[in-house]
Amino acid sequence: METLSVALDDRSYPIFIGTHLLSNPRIYSPHIHGQQVFIVTNETIAPIYLEQLKDSLVGFNIATVILPDGEAHKNLTTLNEIFTALLKERHNRTTTLIALGGGVVGDMTGFAAACYQRGVNFIQIPTTLLSMVDSSVGGKTGVNHAMGKNMIGAFYQPQAVVADISLLNSLPAREVSAGLAEVIKYGLISDYEFFIWLEQNIELLVQGDVEALSYAVLRSCKNKAEVVAQDEHEGGIRAILNFGHTFGHAIETAQGYGNWLHGEAVAAGMVMAADLSMRRGDISAVDLKRVIELLIRANLPTKAPEEMTSEQFIELMGVDKKVLDGRLRLVLLESLGQAIVTSDIDRTLLLQTFAACR
Amino acid sequence: METLSVALDDRSYPIFIGTHLLSNPRIYSPHIHGQQVFIVTNETIAPIYLEQLKDSLVGFNIATVILPDGEAHKNLTTLNEIFTALLKERHNRTTTLIALGGGVVGDMTGFAAACYQRGVNFIQIPTTLLSMVDSSVGGKTGVNHAMGKNMIGAFYQPQAVVADISLLNSLPAREVSAGLAEVIKYGLISDYEFFIWLEQNIELLVQGDVEALSYAVLRSCKNKAEVVAQDEHEGGIRAILNFGHTFGHAIETAQGYGNWLHGEAVAAGMVMAADLSMRRGDISAVDLKRVIELLIRANLPTKAPEEMTSEQFIELMGVDKKVLDGRLRLVLLESLGQAIVTSDIDRTLLLQTFAACR
Repeated sequence: METLSVALDDRSYPIFIGTHLLSNPRIYSPHIHGQQVFIVTNETIAPIYLEQLKDSLVGFNIATVILPDGEAHKNLTTLNEIFTALLKERHNRTTTLIALGGGVVGDMTGFAAACYQRGVNFIQIPTTLLSMVDSSVGGKTGVNHAMGKNMIGAFYQPQAVVADISLLNSLPAREVSAGLAEVIKYGLISDYEFFIWLEQNIELLVQGDVEALSYAVLRSCKNKAEVVAQDEHEGGIRAILNFGHTFGHAIETAQGYGNWLHGEAVAAGMVMAADLSMRRGDISAVDLKRVIELLIRANLPTKAPEEMTSEQFIELMGVDKKVLDGRLRLVLLESLGQAIVTSDIDRTLLLQTFAACR
Repeated sequence: METLSVALDDRSYPIFIGTHLLSNPRIYSPHIHGQQVFIVTNETIAPIYLEQLKDSLVGFNIATVILPDGEAHKNLTTLNEIFTALLKERHNRTTTLIALGGGVVGDMTGFAAACYQRGVNFIQIPTTLLSMVDSSVGGKTGVNHAMGKNMIGAFYQPQAVVADISLLNSLPAREVSAGLAEVIKYGLISDYEFFIWLEQNIELLVQGDVEALSYAVLRSCKNKAEVVAQDEHEGGIRAILNFGHTFGHAIETAQGYGNWLHGEAVAAGMVMAADLSMRRGDISAVDLKRVIELLIRANLPTKAPEEMTSEQFIELMGVDKKVLDGRLRLVLLESLGQAIVTSDIDRTLLLQTFAACR
């Protein structure tokens, strides 16, 4: 097992990465400070892993809520179901919430922990590759609003993150690929050496090789933890983690949440961001081709849906929360392995990117 | 104008106390950092004060949402209306929310600011005595759940609090009295000298004397700010601010939110806490009488509703969030002007208090 630390003063916490962690009681007890534990999971994950987790929580007073699966349920209504269950079970301020699931469960559980009685502890057990390398690290929690993704939430750090690579056995291939989109992102925005490693090992990852996956999760979390430690509340550098996301969110919104997986939309969004970076003269056509080829080998989409118009992109990117005082800011590439945030965006080049990437 | 500071490191902020502040533009502009301002108020306050406030916000891009009045609307549904209005008006991360209203508006606006896009700035303009001396200071924000008051929320500090004593002119006498309950609380829990001042000046306060009210607001906020600065997240000493509240919340819940004003329930709750303190031998019967008489002179109730049974109190106090790991903790008086938090509570004495205070 490897242990990484997210360095945030009194909110610092460990990320454990390894195999067979779910069923290891010693992982949990040091990070649970009361008697009450409240597991939040969903109807897909519960039948596979819930009993195993409960067996690891010997001696605690355990309650559970099982949510419907999917991004469509990541809203205030479902959040309120968590609060209702907590109150029915009389969980108090010393309770610890445990998120057992992917990004949706993690984001909602974290936000519920941030808000329940104005803040209780929580632990993340991500069950998808995407949530291991992305949402479970860094403290972004929240729910969607009908008018925009992740518009309601909090920065709230867990007590610990437990990334059990063994859980990825049961993950559908499409979701492994979606997770690889965020893994590839770290190579692109801050770690060229890792990008080269990914070019050499992408097939192993797609096939679910445990050793390769462990390394990719560790290196991804390390990259993310370094950025988050510098800028917890996204006042500056943290914005680079949104590489591909402004385009990607537009795709997700246009398609309705859940039709494209988040990682798939990010993959297409990263190609669009790389395409615009090339048009600005920052990366070469060869670089762009390397990005596209790696994503294709990871079985990810590299184009936006054919039916999406430029007007739709502009409209949808306009309400994105990365817009400061009305100006569009985008994360682009200065080179492979080096991202920049800029609001100096040429509208003509942007329209060319929209046209080229469908 | 007097300025108090709430000392919380990088979350410190000023409280301005004085007259005719609402219409003074110089009060606001130093505390608004973007171009967008979003005023949250309610249908009672809007006709009286909204235009005056807007006139003070020259040069900003202003949007407004007017909520229904009352504690019954302090819930996730109304909160979502604030988010919808913010998104419709395309307010971004640089927006500043302004709460213009009493505790309900302040608590909801603060919580909306805590959650909107994971946190935007906000300013409190309390329009009731209660919210000036209590909820607008200290960063407790939130909404109610059908199963409990203030169960969902955040600790989130404003950029500034503007306590304009002139606004109290329009406040119904019953609400002035309700505010005085919290004012008297500060005398009881931490400031015996102030308690004596209140015994000497309570009629002036009841009559709405501006000078007396300004002094009482200043002294109350000073007491609260000192406690909050020591213990922002209520890990210890801050709990003394809940004096009378555990009993009071039980009364509010039993009566349905809004039938008793919060301050009225706290007044009766403070008598119950003082009664129990007397039974424990910590304060004298004379002390208890002084407490009751001061509350009576402030036109406040000093007994719980006749129909409330001891069983009801026990049931309702059991789910109160001040319960740690199943043990009831109460704020009691060691002497007039000195509160303690204890979980060493004799059930027999508690039952005697329930019986005596109806």
